[in-house]
Amino acid sequence: MGFVLNRNNVENNKVSFLYEEEALIGVKRIADKVRKDVSLVFGAMPICVPVKGEAGLNELAEQGKIPEFPVIFGTLGSSPLIDELADRKLINLEEIRGKREVYLFTVVEGVAENVSSALVIAGSDKRGTIYGLFRLSDILNVSPLVDWCDVTPDRMEELVLSEADACTSKEPSVRYRGFFINDEWPAFGNWAEKNFGGFNAKMYEHVFELLLRLKGNYLWPAMWSAVFPEDGPGLENAILADELGVIMGMSHHEPCLRQGEEYKHLRGPESIYGDAWDFRSNKEGIIRFWEDGLKRGGQFENVITVGMRGEFDSTIMGPDATLKDNIDLLRDVLKTQNRLIREIVNKDLDSVPRMLALYKEVEPFFYGDGETDGLMDDPELEGVTLMLCDDNFGNLRTLPDEHMRQHSGGYGMYYHFDYHGYPVSFEWVNSSFLPKVWEQMTTAYEAGIRDLWIVNVGDIFTNEYPLSYFLSLAYDYERWGINNINSADEFNEEFVNRQFGKNLSDADKQVMAYLLKGYTKIVSTRRPEAMNDNVYHAVNYGELEELSLKINELMDTADKLSAHCDSTNSFTFFQLVGYPLVATLNLTRMWLAVTENHYLSGIGAGFAKRMAEEANNRLKIDRALTDKLHELGNGKWYGMGLSEHVGFVNWNEEECRFPLLYSFEPGNKRRFVVTIPGTDQHTEGGVWSGKRLKMDDFLDPSCSSARITLYSTGREDAEYEIICDAPWLEFGAGKKGVCRAGLFEHIYVKLNRDLLGDAVSAVIRIHGENGDTDIDVSVDNRDHSSVPANTYIWPGNGKRSLPYVSIEASHCAAVNDTAAGRFLELPDYGRTLSAMKAFPVTAYFTPGKDAPSMDYLVWTDKEDEYEVILYIAPSNPASMDNKILYGVSAASGDMAGKGQWEEETEIINAIPEGFRVTDGNEYWEAGALDNIRITRSRTLLAKGLNTLRIFAATPGFVPEKIVIAEVGTSLPASYLGPKETYRTKEEEHG
Amino acid sequence: MGFVLNRNNVENNKVSFLYEEEALIGVKRIADKVRKDVSLVFGAMPICVPVKGEAGLNELAEQGKIPEFPVIFGTLGSSPLIDELADRKLINLEEIRGKREVYLFTVVEGVAENVSSALVIAGSDKRGTIYGLFRLSDILNVSPLVDWCDVTPDRMEELVLSEADACTSKEPSVRYRGFFINDEWPAFGNWAEKNFGGFNAKMYEHVFELLLRLKGNYLWPAMWSAVFPEDGPGLENAILADELGVIMGMSHHEPCLRQGEEYKHLRGPESIYGDAWDFRSNKEGIIRFWEDGLKRGGQFENVITVGMRGEFDSTIMGPDATLKDNIDLLRDVLKTQNRLIREIVNKDLDSVPRMLALYKEVEPFFYGDGETDGLMDDPELEGVTLMLCDDNFGNLRTLPDEHMRQHSGGYGMYYHFDYHGYPVSFEWVNSSFLPKVWEQMTTAYEAGIRDLWIVNVGDIFTNEYPLSYFLSLAYDYERWGINNINSADEFNEEFVNRQFGKNLSDADKQVMAYLLKGYTKIVSTRRPEAMNDNVYHAVNYGELEELSLKINELMDTADKLSAHCDSTNSFTFFQLVGYPLVATLNLTRMWLAVTENHYLSGIGAGFAKRMAEEANNRLKIDRALTDKLHELGNGKWYGMGLSEHVGFVNWNEEECRFPLLYSFEPGNKRRFVVTIPGTDQHTEGGVWSGKRLKMDDFLDPSCSSARITLYSTGREDAEYEIICDAPWLEFGAGKKGVCRAGLFEHIYVKLNRDLLGDAVSAVIRIHGENGDTDIDVSVDNRDHSSVPANTYIWPGNGKRSLPYVSIEASHCAAVNDTAAGRFLELPDYGRTLSAMKAFPVTAYFTPGKDAPSMDYLVWTDKEDEYEVILYIAPSNPASMDNKILYGVSAASGDMAGKGQWEEETEIINAIPEGFRVTDGNEYWEAGALDNIRITRSRTLLAKGLNTLRIFAATPGFVPEKIVIAEVGTSLPASYLGPKETYRTKEEEHG
Repeated sequence: MGFVLNRNNVENNKVSFLYEEEALIGVKRIADKVRKDVSLVFGAMPICVPVKGEAGLNELAEQGKIPEFPVIFGTLGSSPLIDELADRKLINLEEIRGKREVYLFTVVEGVAENVSSALVIAGSDKRGTIYGLFRLSDILNVSPLVDWCDVTPDRMEELVLSEADACTSKEPSVRYRGFFINDEWPAFGNWAEKNFGGFNAKMYEHVFELLLRLKGNYLWPAMWSAVFPEDGPGLENAILADELGVIMGMSHHEPCLRQGEEYKHLRGPESIYGDAWDFRSNKEGIIRFWEDGLKRGGQFENVITVGMRGEFDSTIMGPDATLKDNIDLLRDVLKTQNRLIREIVNKDLDSVPRMLALYKEVEPFFYGDGETDGLMDDPELEGVTLMLCDDNFGNLRTLPDEHMRQHSGGYGMYYHFDYHGYPVSFEWVNSSFLPKVWEQMTTAYEAGIRDLWIVNVGDIFTNEYPLSYFLSLAYDYERWGINNINSADEFNEEFVNRQFGKNLSDADKQVMAYLLKGYTKIVSTRRPEAMNDNVYHAVNYGELEELSLKINELMDTADKLSAHCDSTNSFTFFQLVGYPLVATLNLTRMWLAVTENHYLSGIGAGFAKRMAEEANNRLKIDRALTDKLHELGNGKWYGMGLSEHVGFVNWNEEECRFPLLYSFEPGNKRRFVVTIPGTDQHTEGGVWSGKRLKMDDFLDPSCSSARITLYSTGREDAEYEIICDAPWLEFGAGKKGVCRAGLFEHIYVKLNRDLLGDAVSAVIRIHGENGDTDIDVSVDNRDHSSVPANTYIWPGNGKRSLPYVSIEASHCAAVNDTAAGRFLELPDYGRTLSAMKAFPVTAYFTPGKDAPSMDYLVWTDKEDEYEVILYIAPSNPASMDNKILYGVSAASGDMAGKGQWEEETEIINAIPEGFRVTDGNEYWEAGALDNIRITRSRTLLAKGLNTLRIFAATPGFVPEKIVIAEVGTSLPASYLGPKETYRTKEEEHG
Repeated sequence: MGFVLNRNNVENNKVSFLYEEEALIGVKRIADKVRKDVSLVFGAMPICVPVKGEAGLNELAEQGKIPEFPVIFGTLGSSPLIDELADRKLINLEEIRGKREVYLFTVVEGVAENVSSALVIAGSDKRGTIYGLFRLSDILNVSPLVDWCDVTPDRMEELVLSEADACTSKEPSVRYRGFFINDEWPAFGNWAEKNFGGFNAKMYEHVFELLLRLKGNYLWPAMWSAVFPEDGPGLENAILADELGVIMGMSHHEPCLRQGEEYKHLRGPESIYGDAWDFRSNKEGIIRFWEDGLKRGGQFENVITVGMRGEFDSTIMGPDATLKDNIDLLRDVLKTQNRLIREIVNKDLDSVPRMLALYKEVEPFFYGDGETDGLMDDPELEGVTLMLCDDNFGNLRTLPDEHMRQHSGGYGMYYHFDYHGYPVSFEWVNSSFLPKVWEQMTTAYEAGIRDLWIVNVGDIFTNEYPLSYFLSLAYDYERWGINNINSADEFNEEFVNRQFGKNLSDADKQVMAYLLKGYTKIVSTRRPEAMNDNVYHAVNYGELEELSLKINELMDTADKLSAHCDSTNSFTFFQLVGYPLVATLNLTRMWLAVTENHYLSGIGAGFAKRMAEEANNRLKIDRALTDKLHELGNGKWYGMGLSEHVGFVNWNEEECRFPLLYSFEPGNKRRFVVTIPGTDQHTEGGVWSGKRLKMDDFLDPSCSSARITLYSTGREDAEYEIICDAPWLEFGAGKKGVCRAGLFEHIYVKLNRDLLGDAVSAVIRIHGENGDTDIDVSVDNRDHSSVPANTYIWPGNGKRSLPYVSIEASHCAAVNDTAAGRFLELPDYGRTLSAMKAFPVTAYFTPGKDAPSMDYLVWTDKEDEYEVILYIAPSNPASMDNKILYGVSAASGDMAGKGQWEEETEIINAIPEGFRVTDGNEYWEAGALDNIRITRSRTLLAKGLNTLRIFAATPGFVPEKIVIAEVGTSLPASYLGPKETYRTKEEEHG
């Protein structure tokens, strides 16, 4: 038995959907979409059977209206058939009744004569039914992106559903969950114009469908040039949204259901709305404007924005007004708006969802300052959801404290996957990284922000991936949230499986997930729009070379995977993985080529020319990709990818420029410059200007291979000879060679430790026609076997030592949990390996008392004061006190994991003086763009073994890397900081 | 009657030179050269008639040995014929007897039967005779460069010399006058190897001839790889020099007639000279080395270098020794050397010319410091000429004071037209400017430096021009020196006339002089080797554009003049004018193109590409020029011009690099950037990032035409429209236009003052598809007719004002002479118009008492404290107190030229704290490279008219430009400083 879905049954009309006359029109539209999903999977579409449900199931069966396998769907209060099934105790509606957006999904036998099995989908409300209908699509493994991205589902032979498949859904974790189409020109706008003729209902139907399939329920429409309540045409957009159960909001500065663009069109000296967006000089006009907006749109399901901002995201009263002036004015605005809503929309104000954004300048109006009370706890805000925001770059700002969490309207979060603003916009292609989204949004949820989550997705395109995750978290926090620290990985796998079926192997799908993680890790480390030639250092720590290799590997892998795709999934692959990966990584690699071009030009290396060619090729690829995107799928994505993304000079794309590439004539003479990779050491070895170079690779006891690179600087090939008498050094390709004009020559140096004896140093001389260069090679030849495992050995050999050790935060020798909290690793998080974070994430701890901590072992050569440099996530302070605190302490010897700790702990504020989350604040901007904050303190370390203990103190402390450096050392410039240095291994040590 | 020189007389042996057996061999060699000169002029060579002079003139005549027109030449004491003429009272030798290097040049009738007229040349000594012989060449207008540069003299029909042409020469102004061949690889070395097989006597004969024809007498030979006393081969070089009367010296660090290279060859563990250039550890070896040198060369006429320096121009004792240690050691060295000279060369030490260079580190050894007495007045230095030096860049260092001038050995000056050292070498092509040479060398002479002048001429080639001037000054200071303030101009004219004859018109020759002055002015403002893309500012004050135009004009003029040359003078033109001018200006222009390329790239202007092409073309020309130089004249100058001269990274040519050129893809969209020439204002006028620009040209009352320049920044042609409603502004080519992709568009703005009315400002809007740019135009519409002439009006119009006025130093309203001194203008001197200098040049004055001063009139808009910024010559302090003082004072009203002056005068030291003339001193280096020193003081100015008075105080104060700026203003970056601003005219004012 069971509900049997197969092609035969469908073709023979044995499977059909019963469309009750009483059913909500939007629910029927969704049922149409689900029938289409069925047709994609089985090759035939179930018919819809219109019925008048009040006749009762048996009567209908007699009339031949009910086939063998009917799908009965309905919403409590709008479905006589569902009511009848409940009355007949065939289903139990008590589990869903009165709940928000839940559904019962079950298979029922014996609903009527001749009916084998009925699939019954009953929603507690309109969206409950809709989500219930889409559950069938989910079970058929139809992607939520089936419509938006034309994802082709696998064909199925047969699906049999039985009572065992029954379920009752949960209430969504967050009440309002949705996204904001924003910054929609040139990409989304061109796309909409070409495909639909504008921002109309034809277009929005796809957007609504996407939202609902992803279990969202809330949308802010495009608002740069569009006017949602006018473009339908007329009210069609709003009507359609309401039918489909999409709750409309408008952006944070568009109160009372009216869009900013509208005022621009309507204002004027003769306008009834006046000619000033000014609540003082044009109060009457503005009120009239709002009034008409509420009259027009109040009938629909909305979250009404309240409050007011100036034009162009400015403050409402101009720069000269006091905080109190602003607050008083805003209070007046709120009072007026509440009155209008009460009069026009609903006398029961509390039942009208309203939202006030605490965004940018409104934040101080809410909190006030020492002298002026803010609007917090103001009666006008009762029942209003207070929307907090990230800093536009994915880092939360202040969070509600215990007191604030009591606020009756609850809290919302406005998050960004796309941004148009300071310091650099990002509007082109997805550059958000799921582990970061997880870390931030779980923190938000834990802090009580559970009423409204909205994310700016720009043009939507390529942001489907993080958006899916965002809405999954919002819908099912229990599954994806704080208790699932591997949430992002798990989601990646599920996301890939949703989009790709049996035509790709499981191994390929794993690679696909790897690619998604791979590209987003890189582009979230530096967003494409913020990339330039001064981000990664050309040579220091080899960070550029390593990243280049990683990018090449990812692009090659994507290329190979692309070849595995067939006609069913190659377009899907291109949209969801191939295009965003190649577009962003190609651009990143382009900038790296520019960096290399500039660096090599600076040392006269003719190879710079190849790097210029590389950069130019990458720019060609960049253009070709957009063209390809506009052609594929019959131009489905025409317009997307058009946002400027190269060479921002301002925060927006104005005056943006393609990169400067350097060229120069090769020098006279047979010349080359000797370089030590990973460092900026270089010399041509001339008689007067010659320098000695240092090769320190072998100060890492695990290293036995290093490199010298010669770059041609002259017009002609240049011979070189290696002169070295150390028997323990071997040279890859012999001791003589030629550095070809315009190219480079790697000299591989192998260390044979067996032949070392007591030696700790040697000199390699590179002899050329134009001069000699001497390279001092240092080797760590010491015995570290008595040092505990996971100890970072200060690189040195007694004669020479480097000025730092570098430690990945997760490579602690021990973590120390307390009753109050514990440190856990956030896998993949941040710019390098991972990060550590203390849980509970909103807790405040006292170091030395209840604070969890981490222990690091460091072996130094000398007792001294050292600098402890922490690379931490660029979290913003959770409260207005501008603090993110942590503790640092050190003891001599191996104290790792030992509870007793007598040492004094220094409490460090990671937030520098003068920090503010605001445009133009250098500290905030640096953190947001670099995706890191660097903080420094000092500590004494003894000669030999030391334990460095780091304590959590306030929320937001997420360390990624720890560098301990000699005081006064200026470490080589780099983006990612020093590469991790040697630590003793587990297997070799006690 | 008279001495008749014509082709007929020569061909018929009626003119001949009598070569007495008793005559000095070198004198005869010179007579051969003069006979050759005669042959170039008349097409036939006078024969030489060997005679034994003691026979007497009549007897010789009887033997038929004396032709109708004999040239009788001889040296006092070596010429029986001359003695006889004197005995017969036909000539009077008393005027030359006992004198140094003088000659009697006269025509004598009746010396013997059948002799019409004899040309008699009698020298007081060998060089006197030689100079006398060359006087005939001079009279024939044979260039002193006839041999060195193959300058072809004009043919003459006939020269008749009579008693009226008789003259007795004067003693040369400076005793030892010569040059130093230095830094001779790769240019001079390759030249000598190819043409002569090395640094041998064949080669040196040309050098000696050049020296003697230029009235020099003293030479330092090449010493990088060459050994003068060995390369002749053997002693031939030294013997030839001695014969020709060339007094040999060796460089400042080559004592006792031995070259530095020699010790390198001779030293060794087994060497009798030991193996260390160390007077302590290897005293015996070093003394032996010197001893042998003196034995070898002491027989010749020398100026023997004494003292000792370490190897490679280092200090003798290393960095740890105290001043006293060094002085004691040097004293010991001198004592030893004096003993050796006395023993080996001449017991009468005082009669042996000796020289000690007070160069670099030796300077402090001489002066000592507060605690340690220097070697000044040391008995070991008695009779030793103390050679002072410039700072290698043509600026004198300390000068002898009154006391020092009593020193028995007198003083010398080591000057540089070529230098190999910090901060940047200049060894390629002449970059010395005669007005500067005049200013410096007259100061030296006035300070008593009259015993020895030597100038480093590098490879000689292209330095023949300043060298000629230098030796002219040294030989005939009365003519060219302190009393001839237009000396350089006069010399230019004479130099050109010497090299170019009747085949070029007088007008062309004037142009030639203009070209010589023109190119040397530019390349002395910034030497070619020190040029780079960061010298001249790309746009500020239009300095780059102006210089580019000047260079283009000079190069075009040279090109035209070159076309006027024929086979007799085109090679001469190329060597002496064309090549140095084009080579250096082309290189300068190349760098300017790089600067423009970089600047335009920075603002996204596609025209940057053209500038890169321009730079590349200039580099091609640079190479082609060297090739041409190596081919012309049958490869006469093969090797010259080979010195590296592009892109110095170090002080020497090692690692030098060709310039980086920037390229980039033009931007998307139809875009242009609006710029205001002369300023770095630029904007694309975007909605968010658009800026307002300011056009301030019309704040200059004499200006009625200005420019806006649009540069294309995009891929496509971009239309623009000018929107402006001011009737008094006209736009050259209408109000609409197109900025072509990759190019620029000048918009000419004409001010019609007649239509101005009361207007002082307007807005010009440049409208483009991509944004609007508004330009605020300000006009000075005030009436300045009541202001005295030569008043600098503060640029402004009551609403807007610029932050400075800029004044050429020579544009003072009045100079105030005193009994003690006066200011005179040095025409052409310095980087812009000219300079002012107080005379006597070695005098110290007291401002307010006996100091001469200059008055400047300035009309300001507001009473305030202002900054007075002086651009002065980078003179070094004349004494060890590190001071160059001047006085600044201001009074309100017109006090110009009025004696009474009650105002307080501030005394400013132009030498900054920490200044030292030494490698690595930033102040000195900046002055030497920039050829300017900028000093600042403050003064109060009243509203309205002010008189600024500037007083001389110490030697070396040579102001070129005065800028008065608002305090706290940061003036736009530039090389030459603000361009002169408006001053009221003579003719219009009272």
